[in-house]
Amino acid sequence: MRTQVVIVGGGPSGLLLGQLLHKAGIDTVVLEHKSRAYVLGRIRAGVLERGLVGLMGEAGVDARMKAQGFVHDGTLIAYDGDMFRVDFSKHTDATVVVYGQTELTRDLYEAREAMGGDTRFEVDNVVIHDADTLAPYVTFEQDGATTRIDCDFVAGCDGFHGVSRKTIPDSVRTDYEKVYPFGWLGVLSETPPVNDELIYANSDRGFALCSMRNAQLSRYYIQCANGDSPDNWSDDAFWDELRRRIPDAAAQTLVTGPSIEKSIAPLRSFVTEPMRWGRLFLCGDAAHIVPPTGAKGLNTAASDVHYLNQGLRQFYADGDSHGIDTYSQKALARVWKTQRFSWWFSNLMHHYPDQTDFDKKMQLAELALLRDSAEAQAAMALNYVGLPY
Amino acid sequence: MRTQVVIVGGGPSGLLLGQLLHKAGIDTVVLEHKSRAYVLGRIRAGVLERGLVGLMGEAGVDARMKAQGFVHDGTLIAYDGDMFRVDFSKHTDATVVVYGQTELTRDLYEAREAMGGDTRFEVDNVVIHDADTLAPYVTFEQDGATTRIDCDFVAGCDGFHGVSRKTIPDSVRTDYEKVYPFGWLGVLSETPPVNDELIYANSDRGFALCSMRNAQLSRYYIQCANGDSPDNWSDDAFWDELRRRIPDAAAQTLVTGPSIEKSIAPLRSFVTEPMRWGRLFLCGDAAHIVPPTGAKGLNTAASDVHYLNQGLRQFYADGDSHGIDTYSQKALARVWKTQRFSWWFSNLMHHYPDQTDFDKKMQLAELALLRDSAEAQAAMALNYVGLPY
Repeated sequence: MRTQVVIVGGGPSGLLLGQLLHKAGIDTVVLEHKSRAYVLGRIRAGVLERGLVGLMGEAGVDARMKAQGFVHDGTLIAYDGDMFRVDFSKHTDATVVVYGQTELTRDLYEAREAMGGDTRFEVDNVVIHDADTLAPYVTFEQDGATTRIDCDFVAGCDGFHGVSRKTIPDSVRTDYEKVYPFGWLGVLSETPPVNDELIYANSDRGFALCSMRNAQLSRYYIQCANGDSPDNWSDDAFWDELRRRIPDAAAQTLVTGPSIEKSIAPLRSFVTEPMRWGRLFLCGDAAHIVPPTGAKGLNTAASDVHYLNQGLRQFYADGDSHGIDTYSQKALARVWKTQRFSWWFSNLMHHYPDQTDFDKKMQLAELALLRDSAEAQAAMALNYVGLPY
Repeated sequence: MRTQVVIVGGGPSGLLLGQLLHKAGIDTVVLEHKSRAYVLGRIRAGVLERGLVGLMGEAGVDARMKAQGFVHDGTLIAYDGDMFRVDFSKHTDATVVVYGQTELTRDLYEAREAMGGDTRFEVDNVVIHDADTLAPYVTFEQDGATTRIDCDFVAGCDGFHGVSRKTIPDSVRTDYEKVYPFGWLGVLSETPPVNDELIYANSDRGFALCSMRNAQLSRYYIQCANGDSPDNWSDDAFWDELRRRIPDAAAQTLVTGPSIEKSIAPLRSFVTEPMRWGRLFLCGDAAHIVPPTGAKGLNTAASDVHYLNQGLRQFYADGDSHGIDTYSQKALARVWKTQRFSWWFSNLMHHYPDQTDFDKKMQLAELALLRDSAEAQAAMALNYVGLPY
């Protein structure tokens, strides 16, 4: 069989790309290793930049997000027992929308089904062939049968562990990585969020984040040691530790309840260069990972999708390959800036095992500057709502 | 003998404090360990923040600075073979003035002599007594004789190696320190500066700075290894290495000549807390050291002098000790923010021996953000022209 673009990976970036290309009349097949239920069961962050919100609109899948998402016009930063607010509208022309990645993925699947998109779940042994030629093709196994799809392009949207990045030979790839000496222990609970906006807390006991999915679904995180296990944390122990890391005013109004999910995520910064090899394009986690501080993972994937969508549309509309030829360069320019923000915000907010007293003072001075300086708040707000594409 | 305020140290911060107190009718004696000629021979940075420029005016010693200083309304930042400019007026309501610290110190000495101020040079064995009582006094030796000066207050303006900080017992002091794994090799030459404004350069070979004192006196620096010696660097070797670290456009127009001074300075961040012990107040290098990137040493000393001048005036005018009681807290709040800027700017611009490829990418991403983002430039400009007192 044949299609124009094979999208390897049925997560939100692959699906969003599929919808955007569909709007331009470009055919896609999406290949997903897991089941639909598994993909929709994954818990991920849910703070959407203006750029991603705009792309959802462009793809025609923003109705539920608009109805149910929460517009956040600022965020709270806590340290040294106190809190201050960074106001987004005051410093930028944008806001962010809190809307769970799970919900967004569901909307994208429903739209893909509604338009009759070809999606193959539970495929195995995906292999991308001849990506460095003008005639690439992809093979995969499903229910014991091997299928070959010939195509013009392959979009590698299959995440950090997927096959796409590994398809690019080591000899042309450079990987950059930083592993942080801690993880995030996260709890999802059916309780009202402690605050309307997110609270990022730097405390002597480590970082904490008060986040939410909706008015009755809260998401809290505390920094934990690498190698720790969720099994070491009873719900009570988690809530007690969270209370110790957030300002008293927040701790006293925190509503706790049973956790409905509890897991630990490691923190890693990773980028591979280039993001294009011949007719294979990497998008999102396949090419880069950010630590979750500031919630840039899905948002950075979305900016890749934007650049790739633009490039492919230009190619199919005008036969002009400029957009796809410059994809890697354009995507990486923004990726690195977003990596910097996530790294900076992580460095600012966490306790590091090897941190000196001087290092700690640098965190506190930067937090004080951010509290007191409109200029510093503007620079942070710009990155938080998302750098322009 | 007796005076109101003994100022230990006859460098620019002690002298500026003396002039400001004199304007309020407060008597001082300045004690300096070195000779007048030695103090005036010291080569130091010469980029003055708006705050220090204002204090020079308040002290009535800004005539020559206004006539001969160069107003800089921006600075150039070079990396990856290219340069961009950060415009100060565009982002703040201030500029900086390039005027050598040596010149400023000379102006202050001339003013002190003109008003008949009591200055003792080449004093030895300065001891600050009973600083934690209401009746402190200072003893010193000069020409074999010991003198005792009773006073209300002691201002410790005697630099990092002076006696003032050491007078505060270890039990009440906390020191914070970071030593950088490199130094700056500086050359002064009687050549026209390569550029009207400063050029800060991040290069693969290490940091370089193109600075100046006036239209015929240039000051250049290159990052060098700790333990290196000026004797290892011929003038030609210095110029060759400088050329390799700055963009071609600058390298091609660089006018070189014999060095009239060549020296290596280590880079250190240091702060002691508190900055007040009883009736002893630390100002400037006695309490804190910054790495020279961004030229905050003298400027931070000036902000200390400002807060101490305000506090002492309030005390003598109204008998109100609020200003001196809060001196340490106020001075330190600004000191830490300035430390952060100097640390950030140093981290951004230097090559670190243990830097990973990822760390290097973070520098480049931050430089790209600074190049492209008005918000990031505004935050930098605010710190560069000087945080408000």
